[in-house]
Amino acid sequence: MEPEPPGASGPAEPGPRVRGVRGAAHAASASVLSGAEAEPQRCALAVAAVLPAGGSGERMGVPTPKQFCPILERPLISYTLQAMERVCWIKDIVVAVTRENMEAMRGIIQRYQHRRISLVEAGVTRHRSIFNGLKALAEDQPHSKLSKPEVVIIHDAVRPFVEEDILLKVATAAKEHGAAGAIQPLVSTVISPSADGCLDHSLERARHRASEMPQAFLYDVIYAAYQQCSDYDLEFGTECLQLALKYCHVKAKLVEGSPDLWKVTYKRDLYAAESIIKERISQQICIVMDDEEDVGRLLEETLKNELNHVKVTSGPLCHAGRHLHQIILEQCYSFVCVNVMTSEFEETQKLLNLLKESNFSILYPVVVISVHFLDYKSVPFDRKMENLMQIRELAKEVKERNILLCGLLIYYPQDEQKLQDSLRQGASLIATFIRERNSAFIGQLLIA
Amino acid sequence: MEPEPPGASGPAEPGPRVRGVRGAAHAASASVLSGAEAEPQRCALAVAAVLPAGGSGERMGVPTPKQFCPILERPLISYTLQAMERVCWIKDIVVAVTRENMEAMRGIIQRYQHRRISLVEAGVTRHRSIFNGLKALAEDQPHSKLSKPEVVIIHDAVRPFVEEDILLKVATAAKEHGAAGAIQPLVSTVISPSADGCLDHSLERARHRASEMPQAFLYDVIYAAYQQCSDYDLEFGTECLQLALKYCHVKAKLVEGSPDLWKVTYKRDLYAAESIIKERISQQICIVMDDEEDVGRLLEETLKNELNHVKVTSGPLCHAGRHLHQIILEQCYSFVCVNVMTSEFEETQKLLNLLKESNFSILYPVVVISVHFLDYKSVPFDRKMENLMQIRELAKEVKERNILLCGLLIYYPQDEQKLQDSLRQGASLIATFIRERNSAFIGQLLIA
Repeated sequence: MEPEPPGASGPAEPGPRVRGVRGAAHAASASVLSGAEAEPQRCALAVAAVLPAGGSGERMGVPTPKQFCPILERPLISYTLQAMERVCWIKDIVVAVTRENMEAMRGIIQRYQHRRISLVEAGVTRHRSIFNGLKALAEDQPHSKLSKPEVVIIHDAVRPFVEEDILLKVATAAKEHGAAGAIQPLVSTVISPSADGCLDHSLERARHRASEMPQAFLYDVIYAAYQQCSDYDLEFGTECLQLALKYCHVKAKLVEGSPDLWKVTYKRDLYAAESIIKERISQQICIVMDDEEDVGRLLEETLKNELNHVKVTSGPLCHAGRHLHQIILEQCYSFVCVNVMTSEFEETQKLLNLLKESNFSILYPVVVISVHFLDYKSVPFDRKMENLMQIRELAKEVKERNILLCGLLIYYPQDEQKLQDSLRQGASLIATFIRERNSAFIGQLLIA
Repeated sequence: MEPEPPGASGPAEPGPRVRGVRGAAHAASASVLSGAEAEPQRCALAVAAVLPAGGSGERMGVPTPKQFCPILERPLISYTLQAMERVCWIKDIVVAVTRENMEAMRGIIQRYQHRRISLVEAGVTRHRSIFNGLKALAEDQPHSKLSKPEVVIIHDAVRPFVEEDILLKVATAAKEHGAAGAIQPLVSTVISPSADGCLDHSLERARHRASEMPQAFLYDVIYAAYQQCSDYDLEFGTECLQLALKYCHVKAKLVEGSPDLWKVTYKRDLYAAESIIKERISQQICIVMDDEEDVGRLLEETLKNELNHVKVTSGPLCHAGRHLHQIILEQCYSFVCVNVMTSEFEETQKLLNLLKESNFSILYPVVVISVHFLDYKSVPFDRKMENLMQIRELAKEVKERNILLCGLLIYYPQDEQKLQDSLRQGASLIATFIRERNSAFIGQLLIA
């Protein structure tokens, strides 16, 4: 889904333009989760967000609450925070976590360098957690750095794939209507059981929708609703739109969302989320090589032919600083480094140093495949191999910086057909290591 | 969820006991998808099943209809058929597919050796496809080998994880109530929009359920309902329970299902299904080795320590025929073959021959990891390596039989601590190759 053009769905009211001024790691990661370049949006609204994250994840069937389950070794909630904080017009993000997870949450914020986050203690139910978040945004909080927003977005910690465009749509609609929420078509028919466990009636699917997140409200509306609502609502209710309707007579505007808004609920959803994230960070491969090298060119051609839907770029390391910076901005997390002149790792080592200097692998593991060509007529196999086994130590060292390094030795026979086979197998190994991003294979020397 | 004990929820009426007499591949695979041993069930009902599989999968965002999307190179629908046909008391399985997919479907049935399947042509809507399936089961069909069942189960081709116990529950409840269907709690709140796209009201979550599959009906009830129902129903309806209620005044019994019943709808669901299947077939590892070998024992210990939740068994190949047959019955799809006495592949080759002789890898790719220990004080590294590179040819050959072979060379130093490190890394590589089951890595010689 394309983001709205700036101003198209933005509020008509004039106001300050907020432009994103963010660290490299955050700028780099911004649109990986969104799947599109996140343009700084003109936004005149004072917007804050509240994320209830106090759930126990009982449906997941695992002991860790689902918002803290790791995906590529990073907790799920960090992906959701990343999706929210990349939106520069959301000024404050208030997260409600249980007392026992408060320290862990602080650790996550520090480790992944999240910004604009405030923590409040979660209540025993979802509604109580949201209410605590809203209270922290109220004007009358002493010693608070937070300021009362005009519009507040409520989102789930376990919906990491939220896009800027839907956040903008609900925030804008909330400004106009007082409340707004994302909806989706129903996947299953909804039925109403009778008391004896039989079908009473089934609901017409076309007339109903699933209510999803994000939702947004005029702060005064939702705060007033929470202040008035009953203990029963706070204990057993789940739907904020319903509170706004019941207590403030505000009919929420419903906004069609994309399937990406789905909530990580069951263990299978964690699997799905991991696959989606892996796929998104594997959409671009940068081949680092000397422009003059024919074998590098051949490998590049093969990669382009074999990997549809993946953007393959290439360039030398000589202007490396600037080049790499550009690549980082383009959110490339996968590097193939062609070493031709030596059987050692000079080029790879240079690339690794540059990657280590950047802050680039904080959010996602960066893959580096060190490619070596083996013309086994000229260099004895065993000497080559023993040299190349250094890669094990190198890989161990850079793993600490979240860089996954493996080696790839490509046979380079004279026979044209055999060379094509080698290159194709090499491309397949490269594609697989990049897509799976599995740290067990670091330091291995794969052979094509 | 445990299967019902035979007879507990089974019909009280006496009748013939049907015991499963199936091929090895099917017996072996039966409980991998169910996650529990599928005991032959006593069942006095004449039961058939109808699976509508004519959908175009437009929500998936891929050109292939989702029921034909591959998971581990096998189409999704084949997993669902496998889940149905393992239930020996379901006598006929009628699948409705579009005319253009009829040949492909016949190919799938032949290739994966599915039994008791009949094909009918799908209609343009889900209801029309089901109706076509029901017509094929009617008594008045000329030249039909199918016989009219007492109870018919309706299930989706894209719900591969259906368990025998829920099939038995809905079939039994249908016998008693005329109709029955699986339900699940709602994940999202359901709302009703007003004409202007705003919230009219939200439904109380506790009073509603998602209607899932499987459903079951007395054949005469659902056939009568379809014969009476309107064109509008056939075009726009989706819910069979509703037809039984509307036209036959039969109130379906609702049966709580497990989250496993979920429907593969979006691309992310395919990712999830693949991960679940991979996880299920990786729950057991068989180490093939000589009982006398200390290094094999050490590796076994390490694997047991490092891989919780995985059952690790071991044994020699000498009584191989019988032993392997037992392993196949226990649904083990992962083998670690320890080669100690030679640097060649004698043991691995024997194991591969046995696996090739069985029909065992039809349904799932079988992983074989050929383990070699390298005491680099006694054998020169390069000779060892060159010998071991034979694995590439071997791997290519067995890949055609759906066997994924890779090699693992484990350093075997004198130093106790270093040996432990090697073994742990070896265990991690074994676990990863087994779990990912990625054919790009076949023929590689991994080093721990």
